[in-house]
Amino acid sequence: MMPTSAEMKAVMTKYASLVSAGDAEAVVALYADNATIEDPVGSPAQSGREAIAKFYQGACASGVKINVLSGPYGSFGNSAAMVAEVLVEVPGLGPSRIELVEVMEFDAQGKISAMRAYWGQEDMKPV
Amino acid sequence: MMPTSAEMKAVMTKYASLVSAGDAEAVVALYADNATIEDPVGSPAQSGREAIAKFYQGACASGVKINVLSGPYGSFGNSAAMVAEVLVEVPGLGPSRIELVEVMEFDAQGKISAMRAYWGQEDMKPV
Repeated sequence: MMPTSAEMKAVMTKYASLVSAGDAEAVVALYADNATIEDPVGSPAQSGREAIAKFYQGACASGVKINVLSGPYGSFGNSAAMVAEVLVEVPGLGPSRIELVEVMEFDAQGKISAMRAYWGQEDMKPV
Repeated sequence: MMPTSAEMKAVMTKYASLVSAGDAEAVVALYADNATIEDPVGSPAQSGREAIAKFYQGACASGVKINVLSGPYGSFGNSAAMVAEVLVEVPGLGPSRIELVEVMEFDAQGKISAMRAYWGQEDMKPV
């Protein structure tokens, strides 16, 4: 069984809220054990629960916020996508805004098995 | 050499314009010979120049229009993504609007090597 588009979209919206609330543990619980994160796409992937926990503990400690701007959009498979703004303190740059596309794949249990964030250097701007 | 984010973004914007102009031949020329299209994600992929030509000949004959709504967003690799609305005549449904995310991968020559369109049944609405 694949998760429905509605189920995938609900997880993605919840993901943004939980990251913004700084609840790294709850964010990590949305992921499958063997999940991968590529953020930004083109950087080395984070793989597995320990690496993913470290990733979100760092993000949440820095006070990152994620606001969904459009979508999430579904598919006829196990993937969905959304546009979001990420508000984050960037060392050397200060308070910054990244506008990006996040694509997520899901397993049969509705857990995130892969997350890829599409943004380039030019999509990050000081605010 | 990878294409720059600016180059990838320019191709994606041009892609939307050429589809809207009904110029299937020019659209197909943006693709690499061995490219794949998965539209929507979760449907069987179209692979190779002949299948891709058939796909866009059908789309252009039906008068489909694509308007970029946000992005394109880059990456630190060979991919970029954008949000678009697709205006299309759907058999049995009439004039319809699909809002979706398109992710494209590019080869070293800046040709599209893969296109994936994220939209579910619920992202398509009559207009």
